[in-house]
Amino acid sequence: MKVSVVKNVLAANDRIAADNRELFDKNKVYVINLMSSPGAGKTSLVERTILALRDKYKIGVIEGDIQDTYDADRIAKLEIPVVQINTGGACHIDGNMIREALPTFDLSKTDLLIVENVGNLVCPAEFKIGENVKIMLLSTPEGADKPAKYPLMFQESAALLINKIDLMPYVDFDLKKAKRDALSLHKDLKIFEVSCKTAAGLDAWIAWITQRIDAFKKSRV
Amino acid sequence: MKVSVVKNVLAANDRIAADNRELFDKNKVYVINLMSSPGAGKTSLVERTILALRDKYKIGVIEGDIQDTYDADRIAKLEIPVVQINTGGACHIDGNMIREALPTFDLSKTDLLIVENVGNLVCPAEFKIGENVKIMLLSTPEGADKPAKYPLMFQESAALLINKIDLMPYVDFDLKKAKRDALSLHKDLKIFEVSCKTAAGLDAWIAWITQRIDAFKKSRV
Repeated sequence: MKVSVVKNVLAANDRIAADNRELFDKNKVYVINLMSSPGAGKTSLVERTILALRDKYKIGVIEGDIQDTYDADRIAKLEIPVVQINTGGACHIDGNMIREALPTFDLSKTDLLIVENVGNLVCPAEFKIGENVKIMLLSTPEGADKPAKYPLMFQESAALLINKIDLMPYVDFDLKKAKRDALSLHKDLKIFEVSCKTAAGLDAWIAWITQRIDAFKKSRV
Repeated sequence: MKVSVVKNVLAANDRIAADNRELFDKNKVYVINLMSSPGAGKTSLVERTILALRDKYKIGVIEGDIQDTYDADRIAKLEIPVVQINTGGACHIDGNMIREALPTFDLSKTDLLIVENVGNLVCPAEFKIGENVKIMLLSTPEGADKPAKYPLMFQESAALLINKIDLMPYVDFDLKKAKRDALSLHKDLKIFEVSCKTAAGLDAWIAWITQRIDAFKKSRV
């Protein structure tokens, strides 16, 4: 009984996510679903990515939070179209929340839509939103045991950014173990070691995501 | 429709949690439900609390994780009875998982049961397990915006331990704002500034929880 409810919820969500995807494809919008624990640095990565790519692409952002507009306010300062989804208690963004947010964007004039999910290492990995790619952050203070303990997000994501690499001297983070365990869950996972504070390592991330966006846009011509 | 499903789940859980509570009361077992984001230091706090209180109380531990036994293995090294709950994907511990785990403990010989919840700043706050008290950790690298963004856990918890205070020189954590925002959500919230790594500030936490456990045991005579 309980399982069937969950399955229905996920199946219904998948259908809405597919509708979103169709709309994104039609408008050639590349969509990133960005996930991590609370405080791992998602908004800082969004800011860094906007600054690196704003001259090349027209960017929009959807911020997901249980309440408030802290993160959306940060993005709005960069003069980028941004919508805040307040989930009102829900621990993840689902396809329908994205569908409801889309009319505020001019999709025909958007190249890249970045969706920052609710801070949560579990549930967001289960709900598709119509994204091209799921990207996750893991910050060094969280510890290297996270891939083993929260496997689904590592399996679902195309790339893992290990953030706050600048804190390595002050935290007990076994970088080798984190990478080894993540790759054992997902052998094709692309891993970047970065600091959104110092900008270390971000060039490689920007090059990788640019290549993906361009390949997508080319495929939709 | 969706809301009614959620309500039924929570109401059913509340009934099981009340049954657990009755069993704990009968056996004079004080129960802590420990919650935080992934990697905020829950297991380190459990270890520190065991070392401080093992001579005074008979302690048991329940570890909640989606999969694996990393945390339970750490506790077992301290020669403390410990059970690992693997939620198999679920993002929180509920009352029934606790009920299933209890037969492995001799409750008549347990003074203090510490339940370490799944690392998640959202969902665990919604599910009672029959605890006496909910305790939460917030670590300084997560950022001071967390009370405003994840209010329920701060409202539900009796005490907040701000952990990794040793990292303050290296992270942008506005301690005053974090405390002010947490207290604005919950004016009676007891706040401790601690480092489970260096043991700074833990004496005050141990004194506070000891006073609560003793008062509970006295009330049940």
